[in-house]
Amino acid sequence: MLDFAIIGGGPAGLTAGLYATRGGLDNVTMFEKGMPGGQITQSSEIENYPGAIGEVTGMELMSTWPEQCQRFGLKHEMVGVTRVSKNAEGNFIISKDDGTSEEAMSVLVCTGSTPKRAGFAGEDKLFGKGVSTCATCDGFFYKGKEVAVIGGGDTALEEALYLAKICSKVYLVHRRDEFRSAPNTIERLKTTENIELVLNSVPDEVYGDAMGVTGLRVKSNDGELRDLEVPGVFVFVGNDVNNEVLIQEDDSFLCDMTDWGEVKVDITMKTSVPGLYAAGDMRIDAPKQVVCAAGDGAVAALQAIGYVDEKVNH
Amino acid sequence: MLDFAIIGGGPAGLTAGLYATRGGLDNVTMFEKGMPGGQITQSSEIENYPGAIGEVTGMELMSTWPEQCQRFGLKHEMVGVTRVSKNAEGNFIISKDDGTSEEAMSVLVCTGSTPKRAGFAGEDKLFGKGVSTCATCDGFFYKGKEVAVIGGGDTALEEALYLAKICSKVYLVHRRDEFRSAPNTIERLKTTENIELVLNSVPDEVYGDAMGVTGLRVKSNDGELRDLEVPGVFVFVGNDVNNEVLIQEDDSFLCDMTDWGEVKVDITMKTSVPGLYAAGDMRIDAPKQVVCAAGDGAVAALQAIGYVDEKVNH
Repeated sequence: MLDFAIIGGGPAGLTAGLYATRGGLDNVTMFEKGMPGGQITQSSEIENYPGAIGEVTGMELMSTWPEQCQRFGLKHEMVGVTRVSKNAEGNFIISKDDGTSEEAMSVLVCTGSTPKRAGFAGEDKLFGKGVSTCATCDGFFYKGKEVAVIGGGDTALEEALYLAKICSKVYLVHRRDEFRSAPNTIERLKTTENIELVLNSVPDEVYGDAMGVTGLRVKSNDGELRDLEVPGVFVFVGNDVNNEVLIQEDDSFLCDMTDWGEVKVDITMKTSVPGLYAAGDMRIDAPKQVVCAAGDGAVAALQAIGYVDEKVNH
Repeated sequence: MLDFAIIGGGPAGLTAGLYATRGGLDNVTMFEKGMPGGQITQSSEIENYPGAIGEVTGMELMSTWPEQCQRFGLKHEMVGVTRVSKNAEGNFIISKDDGTSEEAMSVLVCTGSTPKRAGFAGEDKLFGKGVSTCATCDGFFYKGKEVAVIGGGDTALEEALYLAKICSKVYLVHRRDEFRSAPNTIERLKTTENIELVLNSVPDEVYGDAMGVTGLRVKSNDGELRDLEVPGVFVFVGNDVNNEVLIQEDDSFLCDMTDWGEVKVDITMKTSVPGLYAAGDMRIDAPKQVVCAAGDGAVAALQAIGYVDEKVNH
């Protein structure tokens, strides 16, 4: 029986493992099929993780975490988890993709989320070289320059407004001529001088050179092509929350979720199920930043320590 | 008029400054009378800030933060803040201890909290050399060793339980023979085998050598002295939340607070007053860890960016 099972090996999972083992839980396993580190390891430059100075790639930033977080006894099992469920005794069952399972007294799910890509030519090839899905992370690299934003939903509009404060101009490329967003957000968008709406248009191709993106070609609904000379293209066409492990046999979720598939948690990362915690990009209102996910993981682990102690000693 | 005023220069304030300026707010000032870095700079060893490996003092950990966090334009004003209030236009007034004031559209208060000391001989001298006020931070340094805990409230009991999982034995020194805590917590305390209750007793003196604490002498209510040979003494006799800046002329608080003087915030660090945020050790349910305070600061800054943009463009 595990004291604490951690599903996911990004910043939240690693930090939770550090705090749980250093806090005296003996039997803690982090389940992560790939290399620990998380989505951030795909980023080419990070300058907003406090304490990591200079030019740091995501891979470099995370390179020291596994050793630091595992030195107090955290175990890492390189296996996929297919489901987390609860048994009649009130413990959790971790089903693994090798067909075996484990029992755990408490569980942290921190499997992240995956921004969708729009699927236009050059997008995958230039991802991380001018194509981004995170304005908070990468907007500053285009300070005083022009960028394009793809999308017409809430996130696209809010990120366009965020970028407009940093960049000289933001082209907002949207396939329709109206937006699905809060009226207030749409109003702010329309009154922001350095946002140009490129409506009824879809991205056709992003292109570049060895240094990265140099432009985006967009195609209007009546077939006209236009080249936007931008070094940065931000794609906000949706986000897949990696919540599959919480789906039960009857297709319900193990705990309360938002309509967008995020896990509802309180400020201490407790879900609606006692002993089950969620952290990082998959939880409600996630800021999707390494330092925030790490903080979440620490909080969740401290909660789990108390929960396990109470279960054992009461 | 400031876009964003940050009151306090610890991990939360510095990270908020980094995110706010990097996110495009032009006029951001952090008010911190002392050196930036916060309470953690008094700690002699940190091993649970992810990314900071090896033997690191609190001072070393924080040494790079001011430069990193100020490189996007954060200003630091070395002045004390006496009060944050709101004016008729819905902006905030920051009153400074030099008698001047500033106006700000949004404010983050992150002034921390100060653990109380019990006031026995040797306590101040050996603070940070075996005397601690944070089990999560320092408990692990006494793994497999005996420690003493001073106090009888909720925090003392919970921290004793936390330490009992790490240390071989925990002496709980309390001046009375009963506890003011949840019945459930008291029950767990009494059933934990490696906790010895030293009741009707107060600490008389903590003593040590060049390496730190070697023992604690306690005195019972009837005058008997007893020496506990412990290398670690944890003092939990209360916590002063540094919330003075939120107290208004009529003695009310600017925003909703808990009965313990912590600021009530939601998961995005919003207080009950629009445009006012709180972060770090002074907010409700604070885990009092550097990585958590830093995460709070990032979240608060991202909220403030949206708030200011909406105020300006609507």
